Amino acid sequence: MYTLFYAPTPNGHKITLLLEALDVPYRIVPINIQLNDQFLPSFLEVAPNNRMPALIDQENGQSVFESGAILTYLAEKHLAFLPEVGPERYEVLQWLNWQMAGLGPMAGQNHHFNHYAPDQVPYAIKRYTEETTRLYSVLDKQLSEQDYVAGEYSIADMAIYPWVRLHEKQKQDITQFPNIMRYLATMDARADVQASLQKEAEFDWQASLTEQQLQQLLEV
Amino acid sequence: MYTLFYAPTPNGHKITLLLEALDVPYRIVPINIQLNDQFLPSFLEVAPNNRMPALIDQENGQSVFESGAILTYLAEKHLAFLPEVGPERYEVLQWLNWQMAGLGPMAGQNHHFNHYAPDQVPYAIKRYTEETTRLYSVLDKQLSEQDYVAGEYSIADMAIYPWVRLHEKQKQDITQFPNIMRYLATMDARADVQASLQKEAEFDWQASLTEQQLQQLLEV
Ligand SMILES: N[C@@H](CCC(=O)N[C@@H](CS)C(=O)NCC(=O)O)C(=O)O
Ligand SMILES: N[C@@H](CCC(=O)N[C@@H](CS)C(=O)NCC(=O)O)C(=O)O
Repeated sequence: MYTLFYAPTPNGHKITLLLEALDVPYRIVPINIQLNDQFLPSFLEVAPNNRMPALIDQENGQSVFESGAILTYLAEKHLAFLPEVGPERYEVLQWLNWQMAGLGPMAGQNHHFNHYAPDQVPYAIKRYTEETTRLYSVLDKQLSEQDYVAGEYSIADMAIYPWVRLHEKQKQDITQFPNIMRYLATMDARADVQASLQKEAEFDWQASLTEQQLQQLLEV
Repeated sequence: MYTLFYAPTPNGHKITLLLEALDVPYRIVPINIQLNDQFLPSFLEVAPNNRMPALIDQENGQSVFESGAILTYLAEKHLAFLPEVGPERYEVLQWLNWQMAGLGPMAGQNHHFNHYAPDQVPYAIKRYTEETTRLYSVLDKQLSEQDYVAGEYSIADMAIYPWVRLHEKQKQDITQFPNIMRYLATMDARADVQASLQKEAEFDWQASLTEQQLQQLLEV
């Protein structure tokens, strides 16, 4: 049994994609980042960086934060979606790192300046919209000869798909990236992907936890 | 024998830190990113994201890009600086991911807006300077009870140290972070760290490669 600290953001989505693909039992502890649940002391003990997602493995008490580390933990535990050795392993890991260090943070800044910043900052809008386009080009090329990013379906796809789904929000013209378009259709057609999207829909952005409620949840 | 595509930037520095700590033979192929060597076709074949560092393992022909993936590849190959199993492994991986996805990209934007952007953008300077400070606080707390970030010296330190060394450039008041100050002193005192700094000093920012020269280098 896993406990997933979750909100329906692209980084949270990565982990439901993997848990659904593994078909293992898990429960969601909602971390409403709009209402500052991420600063509750019991959450910070698990995730000192005050960010979701985070995971606890109830079987051994292991906790992990950072989506890339959580994906790796679960993939290594269940021997799935990340080859154990060989070139295929590092193919997955390099694209996972590319998402964690490139696509994720840059599309995140893109979202911020295109949607959330109280000031209109043209220089930054241009910078991050163009960098997102560059990253999409790199991905489109990588997908030109295979269905999934690193050959077989892997944790690299689970990291990348939640971010490229949001191409409109990122002001990207997806018709310029035919291979990504095909990839999105392939992903959308998967039953485990649909199950992860169902979890997104169920999240209640009105509700928030108190520290006491969180502690009680974690006692079980 | 390893071939390291390298410039003396924080992300390049990570890999010389590990190669020096492993004490394995390697050669540097300089990628002068100021003179656009990262767009040479033979480099893009290894690193389709047009970024250094990248690595080729001459023993088996494996190539890897993204510094986090390169660190993991080398650590797993040499069974060093990343525990193979258990909680200590994921302690290292979560802090490695924290650097790749958080400290690296955000300090990178900090450098950009504090030093390189042609426009003065006060909103972005404030955003990234403050986010760097938040990340330093998280790190300082983590270092309050141990010498290294994840207990033993590991690839998490090799990822983090090259970035926090540059605290002045990032407009951080390091005296507010006594544990990071102590950490920097611990790291600076290591012989392998000094060897990596020597490689930085030797880099020639005036020189650039042609595609033909790069191909010749890679034939050997
Ligand atoms: N690199 C982290 C990023 C996580 C992250 O940025 N989480 C955001 C939501 S997507 C968050 O929890 N923000 C709350 C806050 O910043 O206070 C990961 O991949 O896990
Ligand atoms: N996430 C990448 C980042 C690498 C990176 O940003 N490299 C920069 C220099 S530190 C680069 O090669 N820039 C050249 C360019 O953007 O054209 C990693 O950690 O390897």
